[in-house]
Amino acid sequence: MAGRLDELGEFGLVAAVTAGSPPSPAGPGDDAAVVAVPDGRVVATTDVLVEGRHFRLDWSAPYDVGRKAAAQSLADVAAMGARPVALLVGFGAPGSFVADDAVALARGLADEAAACGASVVGGDVVAAPAVVVSVTALGSLDGRAPVLRSGARVGDVVVVAGALGGAAAGLAALTAGRDDLAAVAAHRVPSPPYADGVALAEAGATSMIDVSDGLSGDLRHVAVASGVGFSIDVSALPVHASVGEAAAALGIDEQEWVLGGGDDHALVATLPAPDPRWPVVGRVVEGDAVEWVGARVAPRAWEHFA
Amino acid sequence: MAGRLDELGEFGLVAAVTAGSPPSPAGPGDDAAVVAVPDGRVVATTDVLVEGRHFRLDWSAPYDVGRKAAAQSLADVAAMGARPVALLVGFGAPGSFVADDAVALARGLADEAAACGASVVGGDVVAAPAVVVSVTALGSLDGRAPVLRSGARVGDVVVVAGALGGAAAGLAALTAGRDDLAAVAAHRVPSPPYADGVALAEAGATSMIDVSDGLSGDLRHVAVASGVGFSIDVSALPVHASVGEAAAALGIDEQEWVLGGGDDHALVATLPAPDPRWPVVGRVVEGDAVEWVGARVAPRAWEHFA
Repeated sequence: MAGRLDELGEFGLVAAVTAGSPPSPAGPGDDAAVVAVPDGRVVATTDVLVEGRHFRLDWSAPYDVGRKAAAQSLADVAAMGARPVALLVGFGAPGSFVADDAVALARGLADEAAACGASVVGGDVVAAPAVVVSVTALGSLDGRAPVLRSGARVGDVVVVAGALGGAAAGLAALTAGRDDLAAVAAHRVPSPPYADGVALAEAGATSMIDVSDGLSGDLRHVAVASGVGFSIDVSALPVHASVGEAAAALGIDEQEWVLGGGDDHALVATLPAPDPRWPVVGRVVEGDAVEWVGARVAPRAWEHFA
Repeated sequence: MAGRLDELGEFGLVAAVTAGSPPSPAGPGDDAAVVAVPDGRVVATTDVLVEGRHFRLDWSAPYDVGRKAAAQSLADVAAMGARPVALLVGFGAPGSFVADDAVALARGLADEAAACGASVVGGDVVAAPAVVVSVTALGSLDGRAPVLRSGARVGDVVVVAGALGGAAAGLAALTAGRDDLAAVAAHRVPSPPYADGVALAEAGATSMIDVSDGLSGDLRHVAVASGVGFSIDVSALPVHASVGEAAAALGIDEQEWVLGGGDDHALVATLPAPDPRWPVVGRVVEGDAVEWVGARVAPRAWEHFA
């Protein structure tokens, strides 16, 4: 559909976006959606992405912004050891926003949800001075205990599912005007290892978190919540395949991105014993410090108002 | 806490806001919250409010904005016949936003949730060019069927819980510079009849909706979804107590607000037979038209990009 969002209208956009949605007892046209969570507990999380802060529309296509926004919340559900089942989306944009772009963004949200077995079940569209996407993801534990940040125990091993540093390398590439580098794709659309969330929970994970603020910052959250320290072998960390090329092209030590970069949504978990499915990258130790064995850079975390 | 949001920081605000939250198996410090919905189904809805479009901070205190934002989503849950159990909040504001105001807004959200037995279980705080509040409300059906928009049947009576026109009268008063009029309070903080949602469901409601776009627009949604028409007796509609004063002071026909005004979040339901707890305001008829018996004005609905 050609035209501006204010020509299409709120109800027109909702109709266009939900045209392909699966039938539901309470559909997008109702006040609220009804979502099945068989064991009587729902896992729920909300994230907000703002144009210019979390994405740039001259760097990312609207479809990719939708996928990235969905991935951020869906990864939080996976990090609890839950199976993602549904998304609710709040979308704000100026009336002059291109209607086709809004529909593409919504398709990105729907496709990312479908990639892990979830679907978009509700939303709200409003006029706003900037493009804002808020995504609430719901998940089902299917009878398992949630995997929290507070359960890491001294002696556990630390494992990682997914790869680190790609999103940060891609952002650095775009900042440097190098959109030819492969890492750019990892910034535009992360690939969280959704299925590993449930698998790690079933493997007995004592704690889990997804890497959204950067490994160093996120491990710090687990250390504080669990009252433990960590010893991490930097050389064992799984690095995104695109990072080496970007590091060489931009002359930046890849550890900056691997230790400090967020938005990859890899899963970091603690297990009572090693499991061949995931690389061991360190262990839980006494104390409250995180030791980075082999680090060449000083890890730093991301603060949203810093 | 004095200071700006960018001095307090994201984690500082989250800590301040969640300081009084009840303990939970997965708290605000985890990737996601775990919420009990005993019958294995969760009712979920998202709404977004934007400064300058849905509220003005020179007209409403931050605390009131929080209550209003929560009420909008909680009323959607009630309109499904569900019991509200939890809120997740996305909050965006400029770094220069006063930290105390952010905390007050969050307290308003928490107090409105508490008013219907729910609590704030999660959220996200981001930097944004304008103040944006996205609220996802979750509810439990406790074994009941959801009450949809699509179930109205010819011969049903139409009932209303709560009162109409107050929020629109208050907005008109503020626009006219008359913040001395009582209706202003109804605009700043609506009072949805939360408990009536479950009561109407238990009374056998065949359809239900909350009045957020204006009675005329919202009844139109039910008419389309159910494939029916309505005959509404305008003289029987419950009018908010503040409307008469505002109509006299501003020289506006109160029917403008009662039929077309949104944001009161009264509940409109169809029942197979009258119930003494709620006034009958009309009946479901064949066809697809809404007849307004006794209307002096032409009802109109609210379009967010119009």
